[in-house]
Amino acid sequence: MVKGQETESGRLVDLFPSHHPLTPPQSEEDVLAWLRLLRSRRVGIATFFRLMGEHGSAQAALEALPEIARAAGSDGYTPCPRPVVEAELKAARYHGAHFVAFGSRDYPAQLSEIADPPPFFWAIGAVSLLQRSTIAVVGARNASSLGTRMARRLAEELGQQGHVVVSGLARGIDTAAHAAALKTGTIAVMASGADVIYPTENTVLGEEIGREGGLRISEAPMGMSPQARHFPQRNRIISGLARAVVVVEAAARSGSLITARTALDQGREVLAVPGHPFDARASGCNMLIRDGATLVRGASDVIEALGSVPTPAPQSAPEIAAPAPEQAAAAPPRSSAEIRALHQQILDRIGPSPLAEDQLIRDLALPAAAITPELVTLELEGLIQRQPGGLINRLT
Amino acid sequence: MVKGQETESGRLVDLFPSHHPLTPPQSEEDVLAWLRLLRSRRVGIATFFRLMGEHGSAQAALEALPEIARAAGSDGYTPCPRPVVEAELKAARYHGAHFVAFGSRDYPAQLSEIADPPPFFWAIGAVSLLQRSTIAVVGARNASSLGTRMARRLAEELGQQGHVVVSGLARGIDTAAHAAALKTGTIAVMASGADVIYPTENTVLGEEIGREGGLRISEAPMGMSPQARHFPQRNRIISGLARAVVVVEAAARSGSLITARTALDQGREVLAVPGHPFDARASGCNMLIRDGATLVRGASDVIEALGSVPTPAPQSAPEIAAPAPEQAAAAPPRSSAEIRALHQQILDRIGPSPLAEDQLIRDLALPAAAITPELVTLELEGLIQRQPGGLINRLT
Repeated sequence: MVKGQETESGRLVDLFPSHHPLTPPQSEEDVLAWLRLLRSRRVGIATFFRLMGEHGSAQAALEALPEIARAAGSDGYTPCPRPVVEAELKAARYHGAHFVAFGSRDYPAQLSEIADPPPFFWAIGAVSLLQRSTIAVVGARNASSLGTRMARRLAEELGQQGHVVVSGLARGIDTAAHAAALKTGTIAVMASGADVIYPTENTVLGEEIGREGGLRISEAPMGMSPQARHFPQRNRIISGLARAVVVVEAAARSGSLITARTALDQGREVLAVPGHPFDARASGCNMLIRDGATLVRGASDVIEALGSVPTPAPQSAPEIAAPAPEQAAAAPPRSSAEIRALHQQILDRIGPSPLAEDQLIRDLALPAAAITPELVTLELEGLIQRQPGGLINRLT
Repeated sequence: MVKGQETESGRLVDLFPSHHPLTPPQSEEDVLAWLRLLRSRRVGIATFFRLMGEHGSAQAALEALPEIARAAGSDGYTPCPRPVVEAELKAARYHGAHFVAFGSRDYPAQLSEIADPPPFFWAIGAVSLLQRSTIAVVGARNASSLGTRMARRLAEELGQQGHVVVSGLARGIDTAAHAAALKTGTIAVMASGADVIYPTENTVLGEEIGREGGLRISEAPMGMSPQARHFPQRNRIISGLARAVVVVEAAARSGSLITARTALDQGREVLAVPGHPFDARASGCNMLIRDGATLVRGASDVIEALGSVPTPAPQSAPEIAAPAPEQAAAAPPRSSAEIRALHQQILDRIGPSPLAEDQLIRDLALPAAAITPELVTLELEGLIQRQPGGLINRLT
């Protein structure tokens, strides 16, 4: 996270002075506190990192929360109750889910560099896949047979070349990509809890992914059902994990285009498989290519495009130490007042009819990296809604 | 021609000092002399313009030719006999063909700006089309039904928007494009004589083009049969006439790709219709798009891409005057010795196995605009052969 911000704008370093380095949980108590803090009402990702930076630990942040809420005019605020996260932890144990915290050894470096990295996520399966070179293969649910074949072939060949195929476990392209990469390694990023396989027709595939050289991950609480509004957030993790995102088949205004857009915002290489303009299922991909995405004819085009994107070196020896200093400095603490003012600026500009995120960023004349996390927070708080095509509208 | 050279390299202006402005033929005698000069052995396009610049008229150049040949070590050289071109002129009259000379009012400004513009060409049909905005629509002979439909739709819509559709009268995409633009205006650029319609299955279409708001043009002598080696040269006129070249469907290593390549060399906008990578007939277009061609989904993409390319204003009043000064200065006279030295340099570098034109230009470290016309001359003289993909090999 911080790396991206440091390179994008030195100004952010001043805006978000770091008081405390971020240390991943060292005990079960720590894990419970992390869970409680993020699961607390009105604590989004940016707020989580800010509170961690200001208070030094999740426990300290939890203790401070009611007072912070009171200062913001909200009396009687209570953080997420402990029994709730104890139940979550129990469910995680039952399903053999690993708690992968920001700053920990298992947390993928690529993902930590996005503007709004999950503070932690649950992972069921081969956690070591998170350290390998990953390429996202995504696309339409109602894929054509050409599209499905292409997804299968790409995933197979990318897998044979040593890349882990990341996708969203959806019908169509995602399913074909996961299935073809099952033997070589695949990561399913879920919008539901890591233990809730969706759609149900992918139950067997999802279970295989959690067992055989695959990995299911989710930032959602264990046991949570998928909700439409979680998909765009999930998509940012798919692209955040990946060195490159290949869109195999996508109609205009489809979810895959949001993933592609997010990927571009994250500085990821975006690639797309073209199709004939008379085929509506190619329209999203053709649009991406017109907008500068690399045209993909096969796996070799993807590998060529990776070019200078470095392959993460697999970590061979276990390492329990704190994260590297630059990761430790990751928390972007900004004062509550500053955050509130920025939120109000954002909300003032967004009405019930959709506004493009680009436009908003230009209007505010602030770096995208400063605004994007706040949009996530506002979305998580149910104040705004993201729509296909990078559009945002106000909900309240 | 000169415009391009002046902008590409001021050096050329020194290399090719202009002694005489180029004046288009004013009489039938002039036309016969122009015909004889270009139809004379070893007189290619560059030589034609050089001789015109050095000697001021085709008649004077013809008189000087034997002496020039003798100086170059070739005794007993005779220019093209007068009866040959009298027969050509007679055939042209019979078919109602217009003689369109470089520098004349009818000669399209766009075409005059390429590196190797035809000194003249024959035109059968609506000569006024040469003054309109033109867009080339080209593609595979063995087009798919998708490709044919796309060509038809593009040509129809471009025609409705006021653009003249240029193509090569070949089977497949070319045929579909011409037929769809017959009502709004279409130009067929032929590799055979303007009176020899090829392929024969396009006889009716070709005749309609010569009658109903269409135009057939050719730089080849009247009555000449098509020969394979003339197609690449013909393609440079298709793209030379056009503001933009749209490749609708093209396999790898196809003639359409040569047209696209030539178009890029000429600074034309190149656009291509994508297709699914599993469809071999899309591979050329997908390659072009990967290499930077604009992806086309429909006519509006083409029109958008035209962007700042100016629309030539149709000339309403007849105008018999000499060409504009910058056109008059068009002839690039270079001394015979310089040309011979350059030819030798080129031939020294080309062997029987094909070499890329790009490579040759880099090797010689000279501007492309200085080399390209000489390649045409060497090709016309039968010393080198051009192959698909911009490759050249030596013949003798």
